[in-house]
Amino acid sequence: MQKLDASEISELYGFCQKLARSAGAIILQGSKAILEQKGQQGSANEKKNAVDLVTEWDVKVEEFVKQQIKENYPNFAFIGEESYSAGDQNPITAAPTFCVDPIDGTTNFVHGFPYACISIGVIYEKSPLIGVVYNPFLDQLYHGLKGHGSYLVSPLHPSPLRLPLSNPAPLHSLSEAQIAVEWGSDRSKEVMEAKARTFARLAGDGSSKGGVEGGRMVHSLRSLGSAALNFAYVASGGMDIYWEIGCWPWDVCAGVVIAQEAGGFVSGSSKVPLMGVVDEQILTGRKYIVIRGIADTSGETGLETQKRLIKEFYETVEEWAPN
Amino acid sequence: MQKLDASEISELYGFCQKLARSAGAIILQGSKAILEQKGQQGSANEKKNAVDLVTEWDVKVEEFVKQQIKENYPNFAFIGEESYSAGDQNPITAAPTFCVDPIDGTTNFVHGFPYACISIGVIYEKSPLIGVVYNPFLDQLYHGLKGHGSYLVSPLHPSPLRLPLSNPAPLHSLSEAQIAVEWGSDRSKEVMEAKARTFARLAGDGSSKGGVEGGRMVHSLRSLGSAALNFAYVASGGMDIYWEIGCWPWDVCAGVVIAQEAGGFVSGSSKVPLMGVVDEQILTGRKYIVIRGIADTSGETGLETQKRLIKEFYETVEEWAPN
Repeated sequence: MQKLDASEISELYGFCQKLARSAGAIILQGSKAILEQKGQQGSANEKKNAVDLVTEWDVKVEEFVKQQIKENYPNFAFIGEESYSAGDQNPITAAPTFCVDPIDGTTNFVHGFPYACISIGVIYEKSPLIGVVYNPFLDQLYHGLKGHGSYLVSPLHPSPLRLPLSNPAPLHSLSEAQIAVEWGSDRSKEVMEAKARTFARLAGDGSSKGGVEGGRMVHSLRSLGSAALNFAYVASGGMDIYWEIGCWPWDVCAGVVIAQEAGGFVSGSSKVPLMGVVDEQILTGRKYIVIRGIADTSGETGLETQKRLIKEFYETVEEWAPN
Repeated sequence: MQKLDASEISELYGFCQKLARSAGAIILQGSKAILEQKGQQGSANEKKNAVDLVTEWDVKVEEFVKQQIKENYPNFAFIGEESYSAGDQNPITAAPTFCVDPIDGTTNFVHGFPYACISIGVIYEKSPLIGVVYNPFLDQLYHGLKGHGSYLVSPLHPSPLRLPLSNPAPLHSLSEAQIAVEWGSDRSKEVMEAKARTFARLAGDGSSKGGVEGGRMVHSLRSLGSAALNFAYVASGGMDIYWEIGCWPWDVCAGVVIAQEAGGFVSGSSKVPLMGVVDEQILTGRKYIVIRGIADTSGETGLETQKRLIKEFYETVEEWAPN
């Protein structure tokens, strides 16, 4: 197995950031091209539907990324949507591995809603090492390296901001939490009904008689449409929790590092013991939860609170098998 | 009734934009103060809950705005949360009226999630004339004046961008639409269940046997937590539709102008005839829908499509009485 020393890791980290920005420029170009195409009158715009338009640019960005990787890190492995579709049953090997989603938030991308990004993760010794998430529409770059913290770089601030953006606050209960959830792409009756019940239970007031049964009345539910950015927002502290079933390793790998380095706790399904380590099983498990760094209180350490709230969260929601 | 000539309106428009930026600076200051307060260890942070923290800055911003208005437009009326709570039954008079939400997206604001704004509208002859929505976290200013278009001003672009940000595309059916909805603050069983059923029907696949009954399988549902910004995103073209029950005139007044000037169609509940004019009844009706500008197709004008899709939308959702 290929070993990386500190200076090689540092160089690799810089490469990922540069790569994210270059790929971001292509994403912006793609967004412009798609909106122009959609805005053209007549029959021309009927030829390609949204899915085709996205796929075209998804492939274009992925090819660019793969080419750059091939030139600079020819011995590294690569995990992305394409390689997975090829049916690889054990995708995470001992080799250093790029885990990339060329465009995360493709629906936003195709609608011109500025919450889409490229997500570049590096897996080393079977665990996420580097995470870079870049939203070119807002020129926001989130990056993190295991053991070295995570940062937000944006034109609104003169220097990179360490994440979280403020000292972690306490979070006593789910009722104080701002939670990111998504309606996702599996629109079957079973999943839609489980989600609807789950979201209503999270949001609903269960305290009064005749209220929502089991209702937690969380402070708010948000749906933004990008898994990688949801992780980044938990890292920044703007979201307290993000939970999803159905994502893939390339959607979350970069976000995992960024969130963990900001004090966040990442885990998998309700069946997974709360270890705070994202191993191969969690990374490929298709069920993810992340909770932000929480301040210690007089009765509980932040880590204890994170675990308690994840347990409470899983007592509230329903789970289903992702397709 | 006070008449305003073109130069007075132009001056007023500039005043609103300047006011939004100044108020935005206070919002940023408030956000910083709240996050610091929340991040302080020990018992101090237990003293004030999130609601108190928001209210303090909501009032601070509103007082600043009212003071500026008093100095510059002493004869104008003012509508905001406070004046409404006072129980005014007919708030929209013939006088030119500022209709202001000092902080729209207060939950985001208190969590440090950068999607909050100040919303400044001016009602003239009982209809929205000027709209200014400013998100100080992203330094994005949306503004519109009846008959003169609407614009986005942001540091990422050298000059103001005319809205929508690209030529309006066709929108054949709800299945192509990206739709903004919110879980809101009324968490009663009745409302939560109606919303859950409604959202599942919008998102769910109704095409297959055993699918979601009446499912429209819209392209995506988003929840961002700010009514004013939802209007602005429909204006920009990033959202196709935004629908909400329970908002107040100050949440939507500015957004109405910005969306309409970008080709959007704004209306009220399913009971309201689709006139495209936002009168007193719609403005105070607590039920709002807005759909983006749509390109004409061979079979239908954009306006016809807007009306058809609003009708279809209202056939899909449930309505309830806001509290």
